[in-house]
This record gives sequence, C-alpha cells and structure tokens, in this order.
Amino acid sequence: MSTELSSSKRPLIKFDGLHPQLAADCFLLGRVDSSYLLLHKNALLPWFILVPDTQHNELYKLPVNQQQSVQQEISQIAAFTEQHFHTDKLNIATIGNLVPQLHVHIIGRFVNDFCWPAPVWGQTSHASYKDSELNTIIQALQEKQLIHSD
Amino acid sequence: MSTELSSSKRPLIKFDGLHPQLAADCFLLGRVDSSYLLLHKNALLPWFILVPDTQHNELYKLPVNQQQSVQQEISQIAAFTEQHFHTDKLNIATIGNLVPQLHVHIIGRFVNDFCWPAPVWGQTSHASYKDSELNTIIQALQEKQLIHSD
Repeated sequence: MSTELSSSKRPLIKFDGLHPQLAADCFLLGRVDSSYLLLHKNALLPWFILVPDTQHNELYKLPVNQQQSVQQEISQIAAFTEQHFHTDKLNIATIGNLVPQLHVHIIGRFVNDFCWPAPVWGQTSHASYKDSELNTIIQALQEKQLIHSD
Repeated sequence: MSTELSSSKRPLIKFDGLHPQLAADCFLLGRVDSSYLLLHKNALLPWFILVPDTQHNELYKLPVNQQQSVQQEISQIAAFTEQHFHTDKLNIATIGNLVPQLHVHIIGRFVNDFCWPAPVWGQTSHASYKDSELNTIIQALQEKQLIHSD
C-alpha cells in the first residue's frame, strides 16, 4: 500500500496557501466552489477536510455569502460521505487548536469502527489507502460534480 | 458551589423532547428561534450546546430554511462565546455518537485551558458553576436577545 497517489485520475491542482500540516496529513482532491477538498491519509475512516479559501480562522467570521456557500459544501460532502460509504453517523467539526488555517472535518463513522464511539481526533491508529481505493473515491466525487480541478 | 440553578433569572422553559443525557449534563438556558440553547454543567470551559427542534440526526437533512436558521444561530452563539469569554479558539461540532438527538457543540477554548490543545470530548475533569456565574451568562445572553423563554 502506498500513501502517494500516482494515477492520472488525480486532479492536477495546487493550493500554495495550504498549511504544511494539512498538506502532510492529507491528499488534495480538488476544488469545491469556494473551498478545497482534502482527504485525510488515514484510511481507517472516510475523513474529508474542507478548507475554505479565506484568511479567517472561524467560520462565523466569513462574509455571509461565503458562509452560506461553505455550509452548502459541507452539506454536499456530508451527504456524499453517508451515501457513498454507508456510514452510521457523521462527525462534523471545526477545531483548529493545532492548525490555525480554517478547516472543517467531515468524518464518516461506523458503529464498529476502530475507535467508536470516541471522537477520532488524537487517535493514533492508521492505515494507508491503496491507489485503487483513492481513485474510486475521486471518481465518485467527480461523477457527482462535487470536485473540479480549475 | 452548586450544580442547581435557583435564581429567578433562569428562564422558565421546558423542553420535553430533550434527550435524558443532555438534560442530565446541561442547563437549559432558553429558546433561540428554531433551537434550544443548553450550557454544559462543566464550568471548566464555556460550553454551549444548541439543540435544533427536529427529529433528524444530521444537520444536512434539515429543510434548507431550518438549516440556514440553525447555521445563523451557531454563528450568533459562536460570536457571543468569543466576545463574552475572550476565548482564543472556538471548537464547533456535531458528533452524536452517543446521543442520537441532533446537537451542536459550541465550545470556547483557551491556550491555557485544562486540556488544550486536545479536544474536550472524553475528558473527565469537571468543575461546577456558582449560581452567580451562571446568572451572569444568562443575563448577557438575554441582554443580547439571543435567548428567550417563550
């Protein structure tokens, strides 16, 4: 298993403003309107991270239009997570105690997952994605037009 | 210190549909448009919980109008928390792995608080509110017309 994505299915996208910790922990999947969509490299759970294109560190400080846009993106990724992975519960959070760049966790949980019912933050267990698993997720997001690369 | 609130400043409000765990862990402060506002009894942090008036267990499943209303309420309580308590960071989350009733945590964090930078869920340290502390919070929420009792 590899943590690097080599397939041509990966959108060619760069986000120079991404915090180094998020860049190290996640795959950058693509752009979602006013945000960037990441996937946490920990394959134990479907764990998306939405990074709004802003310098603000709290969602409520965004201009109202962008707040509404980001909320809609959260809802879309939440619905995708539940439907694609058949999750039992969603955990959605802005924490940011360690990484100041505003980012929203959208995590699918299962009643038999590795740390249920505890929250996943701070857990140390880890598994890596196979390229094929990652490509399946990216393809599903692209088919629903949830991410794009421009 | 007491965990019971005896002052007449407490809004006279009942919420029969509140999950027993939330009722046990929190003070019911009042109504905020389409939700109820609770304060977690753990006085170590300013920890509000917003309970939308719904049977759905995920925010994205609410009718769009109610979603927008709840998002606005989250923003209002978030702003209040930061401004009233001079917090360093907000942690805002819907988790619900243990309590199925939809509820939104709005927690003010300080860089020197008891469990910084770890998330607060699952921590066991506890302190109780004095009546006077609780009344100050309720009064501040009422003055900003963030809660009402009807």
